[in-house]
Amino acid sequence: MYAREIKLSGHIIDSLMLPKTLDLIMDKGGDFKILDFEVGKHKKDVSHATIRVAADTESLLGEILDELSEIGALVVEIKEVQLLRSEKDKTLPPDFYSTTHHPTYIRFKDEWIPVEGIEMDCMIVVDPENKKAVCKPIGKIQKGELIVVGREGIKVVPPERPRGKKGVFEFMSSTASSEKPMKSTVKKIASEIKAIKHNNGKIAVVAGPAVVHTGSAPVLAKMIKEGIIDILFAGNALATHDIESALYGTSLGICVKSGEATVRGHKHHIYAINEINKAGSIKDAVEKGVLKKGIMYECIKNNVPYVLAGSIRDDGPLPDVITDTMDAQDEMRKYVQDVDMVIMISTMLHSIAVGNMIPSHVKSICVDINPATVTKLADRGSAQVVGVVTDVGAFLPMLYDELAG
Amino acid sequence: MYAREIKLSGHIIDSLMLPKTLDLIMDKGGDFKILDFEVGKHKKDVSHATIRVAADTESLLGEILDELSEIGALVVEIKEVQLLRSEKDKTLPPDFYSTTHHPTYIRFKDEWIPVEGIEMDCMIVVDPENKKAVCKPIGKIQKGELIVVGREGIKVVPPERPRGKKGVFEFMSSTASSEKPMKSTVKKIASEIKAIKHNNGKIAVVAGPAVVHTGSAPVLAKMIKEGIIDILFAGNALATHDIESALYGTSLGICVKSGEATVRGHKHHIYAINEINKAGSIKDAVEKGVLKKGIMYECIKNNVPYVLAGSIRDDGPLPDVITDTMDAQDEMRKYVQDVDMVIMISTMLHSIAVGNMIPSHVKSICVDINPATVTKLADRGSAQVVGVVTDVGAFLPMLYDELAG
Amino acid sequence: MYAREIKLSGHIIDSLMLPKTLDLIMDKGGDFKILDFEVGKHKKDVSHATIRVAADTESLLGEILDELSEIGALVVEIKEVQLLRSEKDKTLPPDFYSTTHHPTYIRFKDEWIPVEGIEMDCMIVVDPENKKAVCKPIGKIQKGELIVVGREGIKVVPPERPRGKKGVFEFMSSTASSEKPMKSTVKKIASEIKAIKHNNGKIAVVAGPAVVHTGSAPVLAKMIKEGIIDILFAGNALATHDIESALYGTSLGICVKSGEATVRGHKHHIYAINEINKAGSIKDAVEKGVLKKGIMYECIKNNVPYVLAGSIRDDGPLPDVITDTMDAQDEMRKYVQDVDMVIMISTMLHSIAVGNMIPSHVKSICVDINPATVTKLADRGSAQVVGVVTDVGAFLPMLYDELAG
Amino acid sequence: MYAREIKLSGHIIDSLMLPKTLDLIMDKGGDFKILDFEVGKHKKDVSHATIRVAADTESLLGEILDELSEIGALVVEIKEVQLLRSEKDKTLPPDFYSTTHHPTYIRFKDEWIPVEGIEMDCMIVVDPENKKAVCKPIGKIQKGELIVVGREGIKVVPPERPRGKKGVFEFMSSTASSEKPMKSTVKKIASEIKAIKHNNGKIAVVAGPAVVHTGSAPVLAKMIKEGIIDILFAGNALATHDIESALYGTSLGICVKSGEATVRGHKHHIYAINEINKAGSIKDAVEKGVLKKGIMYECIKNNVPYVLAGSIRDDGPLPDVITDTMDAQDEMRKYVQDVDMVIMISTMLHSIAVGNMIPSHVKSICVDINPATVTKLADRGSAQVVGVVTDVGAFLPMLYDELAG
Repeated sequence: MYAREIKLSGHIIDSLMLPKTLDLIMDKGGDFKILDFEVGKHKKDVSHATIRVAADTESLLGEILDELSEIGALVVEIKEVQLLRSEKDKTLPPDFYSTTHHPTYIRFKDEWIPVEGIEMDCMIVVDPENKKAVCKPIGKIQKGELIVVGREGIKVVPPERPRGKKGVFEFMSSTASSEKPMKSTVKKIASEIKAIKHNNGKIAVVAGPAVVHTGSAPVLAKMIKEGIIDILFAGNALATHDIESALYGTSLGICVKSGEATVRGHKHHIYAINEINKAGSIKDAVEKGVLKKGIMYECIKNNVPYVLAGSIRDDGPLPDVITDTMDAQDEMRKYVQDVDMVIMISTMLHSIAVGNMIPSHVKSICVDINPATVTKLADRGSAQVVGVVTDVGAFLPMLYDELAG
Repeated sequence: MYAREIKLSGHIIDSLMLPKTLDLIMDKGGDFKILDFEVGKHKKDVSHATIRVAADTESLLGEILDELSEIGALVVEIKEVQLLRSEKDKTLPPDFYSTTHHPTYIRFKDEWIPVEGIEMDCMIVVDPENKKAVCKPIGKIQKGELIVVGREGIKVVPPERPRGKKGVFEFMSSTASSEKPMKSTVKKIASEIKAIKHNNGKIAVVAGPAVVHTGSAPVLAKMIKEGIIDILFAGNALATHDIESALYGTSLGICVKSGEATVRGHKHHIYAINEINKAGSIKDAVEKGVLKKGIMYECIKNNVPYVLAGSIRDDGPLPDVITDTMDAQDEMRKYVQDVDMVIMISTMLHSIAVGNMIPSHVKSICVDINPATVTKLADRGSAQVVGVVTDVGAFLPMLYDELAG
Repeated sequence: MYAREIKLSGHIIDSLMLPKTLDLIMDKGGDFKILDFEVGKHKKDVSHATIRVAADTESLLGEILDELSEIGALVVEIKEVQLLRSEKDKTLPPDFYSTTHHPTYIRFKDEWIPVEGIEMDCMIVVDPENKKAVCKPIGKIQKGELIVVGREGIKVVPPERPRGKKGVFEFMSSTASSEKPMKSTVKKIASEIKAIKHNNGKIAVVAGPAVVHTGSAPVLAKMIKEGIIDILFAGNALATHDIESALYGTSLGICVKSGEATVRGHKHHIYAINEINKAGSIKDAVEKGVLKKGIMYECIKNNVPYVLAGSIRDDGPLPDVITDTMDAQDEMRKYVQDVDMVIMISTMLHSIAVGNMIPSHVKSICVDINPATVTKLADRGSAQVVGVVTDVGAFLPMLYDELAG
Repeated sequence: MYAREIKLSGHIIDSLMLPKTLDLIMDKGGDFKILDFEVGKHKKDVSHATIRVAADTESLLGEILDELSEIGALVVEIKEVQLLRSEKDKTLPPDFYSTTHHPTYIRFKDEWIPVEGIEMDCMIVVDPENKKAVCKPIGKIQKGELIVVGREGIKVVPPERPRGKKGVFEFMSSTASSEKPMKSTVKKIASEIKAIKHNNGKIAVVAGPAVVHTGSAPVLAKMIKEGIIDILFAGNALATHDIESALYGTSLGICVKSGEATVRGHKHHIYAINEINKAGSIKDAVEKGVLKKGIMYECIKNNVPYVLAGSIRDDGPLPDVITDTMDAQDEMRKYVQDVDMVIMISTMLHSIAVGNMIPSHVKSICVDINPATVTKLADRGSAQVVGVVTDVGAFLPMLYDELAG
């Protein structure tokens, strides 16, 4: 038998760190002995456990420890992090370490160094001279960079269950149902938003074109104007239909007010693109007085940055769209680490893209009428995702009323 | 070849009667010759066509004519309706005629007699002495009754496309999308409701428990109080959760206001049933001052009749619930023929039950967050069904605002 | 502060009993002190904890203890169960105890008596002379019966997490996704079925009409014939469409083989009901040689009992349908306590009805193409529900192949 | 009143050209007079109608004629097509004509010239010297090019209803239900595929990663190997998970055979990308013996071209992925005009992209478990789309069996 000791600290029972640890060992076919267990006797006390993990083979033990490290278990005998050089651009050394989205530290020269820009499914690149560690996706790895491999000297710190009553994010986390009273959910989200804005926190919105189709564009525009939204992530469709709506009152040719198809309306989104192409860019169109309202207009007027990422189904696209998806990702990376909350509305594609980039402490809300989309996002390991299965056309107005009221 | 002449009259081109006729003949493998075609040259003119339908066998011809009769084609040579007696309760003679939900007439003793209480998938029972024809479901057929068989002497009159711009029902009919601007749909429905109430028309609501779960019960209660709703069809669950909500502020133990689970809340619906059982009935509970608000309270207070139909999943049930489903259907039949509009909210079971009973001229709205439910109802042949895929918690408040505004 | 001691025993960490206990106390605003904690050091060892639960008011403490008892916590100082008489049929004394679906015992005259026929949301009725306790729904409570009230002397034993690797039910429990490889899920379900049949266990099927529409009726018929299925719960629609399919090859008029609409096909389900009405019952129709194949035929031929529960949307219904829903529930109750597995296919209504009746040790599989249905059933507190989001037309043939192979 | 004559020819009644024409005129508030109507008296005869369309304003008349031209109505007095030059790259002259996906001709120097490469929502660019007209998206318009504007001299030829019984595409067109017998639908699709392959036609597959997750990758690989599939459109996810599955037996870390999560499995897709990056490309990986099976392997081995279009949510991506979405569209355009059938499986994004590019005569099948996806694609105006709401893991094996059988 191969064995090793691990240590768990914190509210390890009710934050499920301990149960998950035992579960995982059993699931993988390993064995355990609890060597020491100091229970926090009162509500605010922390607990500590030392557990001897055993397995039949060294590789199985390694695998178990690897998984345990992701839920915050720390190998007792702390060793130095292991590093290997990449031998070619965009390639990784054997047994490379793939990141979680939780705060992560590496043991380098007897110090715990934080990993900067943490993001899921990325690698840790170490700059030994400056004692710095940064998170990088595989596509940005350069030949010769030092990559963290193996599992020694890596510490992951998942978020803990808050003491006392649960807040909206803890309360809701696993539930995404269309049968819950939406008003109360919206109320809680609104109060989180107010708290964040009160502390000068930043809120990102990831929005799909349904925001415009369902008639909620004016509400989102107002939220941008009033400083509630600090950054907008979207695609060509949201921007095009917003501009179409601002210029012609339609979205994909459907009149946003009456819901009726407009004569020759299906051409309106091409008209909209044409107008922006003539002006040069969305900003130019605003400055020339062509574009006078809407989501994109308020972004320009209020210096709210936006990233419009291209997709294979785009018409046009608008000149502001970043058609290279890797460039678009990089542009998004500039903003995500600073954000305190992300509201994702009716766009699985962009929501997953952003969801993969944001650290686990960022509060996320995923709004969609399709429960599968909400479940898919919540399943990606983001415990802090509040899923709301509802009509997009109802959510934003309700949220705005709650914020204003 | 066996052949027979049929006649089509009305706006037969744009109401699709003529195209459907030709389609059907070709689909079934028949042949046709257009003998005469008088086109209505102007918008308001009607057209007339005489078509010779042919088929290889007499039985195929019969089948084609049978199907054609359901879309309003009339066999030129009008014969007397054929009748046969039922030989046993709940059984039918061979080749019995199964009804549509369109207005239907039979040719009896050289007169066109209207069929009373028309309903889908039922039989026509004729009382020769009083020259009356009534629609009956198979379960109510009695031994010895005269049943319409074959296809001679039956005239079906499907609704026609209105001239001029289409109204909300024509406009929406085939579309049930969560990407349409809901506000405009709701506006149109509201204006139809106002028009119906202006003409002293009657509106039925078919409601599932999600109305309560999502917090919309007070809105529906107000609509009942204000005389907008004339009849309520529901089940034990809606009534129980409404009463639970009125008595304890929860629905299935979830606080309707805060959305949080209440301590011991899952027992509240049993408490609610217990209170009504103690009082005797919902009416008794209102009169004794036990029940003081909510949907059921307003029904009692405002003499709005309700039918609560039992289902296999019921807890309790409440004493007002009709546990025998056939008795419940009969109770529903007392009301449906007089209704001008039916609003079906979040209950596939009860909606299909009501949908099968209402004649085709009744305007129907089906609201559900699941597009499959909406599609299923629309597919049942009711061209006049407006499907709205949205959050129930958003629909009713929006509709009420529109009605009040 | 009001306080009381509770005791937890078993694999209380990884079966989540302990974490849930602490969670619950904190959620409700109570406080705790862990007085004693003996950790099971090895995988197979059990753990024991004694916890002092405190709250500001006596009623809050009561509520907390009440909830804790449902997850298996036992109040240390065991008192006698409290009983009160019902004062009227179908009514309950104040503070009655509402059951879970876990095995339950009451402390009566210094003995732990098991509650018979345990079922969710019911009451415990005690027969003091025979020292017997039975579970009864509110609708069956009779005046004068002794009902368990309060929370003293009640012991609930939720199922424990099995040691070692998880089986299919533990493995799947929380996941219901259309993106999982279905074949492996079906393989695991098949091996569970084989194990149950090997031990002469009983399997119930709850089936909706989609089984017939999607062409899987012959597979279900074969499973009944081969003794895999021991009891069938369904409604009028399943039986009618199965018989329609056996007699005419169609289901709701759609040819089950070709998928094409049959001429006059929508009448076929009425024809089918008519034939059975003429014969007298499904059994009579089989004996008279009218019905020669299909699901219902195999039930009759192989003495597999079935319960057909009526619903408000039924046409007909067939003479075998129990139109009174409370009578139908009683008929179902005769079978559910003996069953080892329930396979619920495409019928939310009947599945919830059965789901509410079955004790928590019964393995349940819920198959539906709509993820909301699967989630709804899994949410009803049955941890042992395996949700499979898939096409019904694909599931049964695959399962049969796996069972045969 | 402004008026103009139009002519309709063909099976204008049952192909709905005439009813749609009258409908449209009425919807837009115009008026009509049928001047001449020659009805095709027999099944195979064509009909002709001459209609005088009138409207209150010249612009309304223009709009009506514009819409009518899209359903195949031809203005009687044929004028030369109107052309205007683009004044700037990616911009269009006023009143530009936006294309349908039906075969289109322009009247240029008294000849009807076909528009090459027809695609929805694009522009017609005319080369007057060579008398050629090509379809171009707005993003590819260059300064100085001659663009078709207005509505004169444009003829659109929508597909006609075939005489006799309807085939699978006509039969299914409007229906996308999970309650239909899938087997018969699959059988019809299989027979269409056989007919296409018999005539050396080409079939494209658009596939999402669910094909791999659900275990159907080996089936798709076989279809490619056997020459059934001629071109593959997909994204980074499909290719990565296919390669992950080929190299490690998992898809997103889930073992495709057992359905269980593999230890450290969530890193496997990064491993897969790493291996291909090391090799250089998918082709290099096949040639070096790294990649030995799967969808991508068979594409390489059998010279089946593939287009992998990048998206904002991509990890990696693989070196073969075209990260610039506009470049990816261009690569797709090289293949779509030659294709006879497109099978779109579980990817709304790529399916809409391809759907927008294919001419209306291409037969399309859209398979998804979410009815909303299927409806959305069918709604985009492609009457020839067969929607199949089913489990992807069931569809491909069934289709392959049907093709092999």
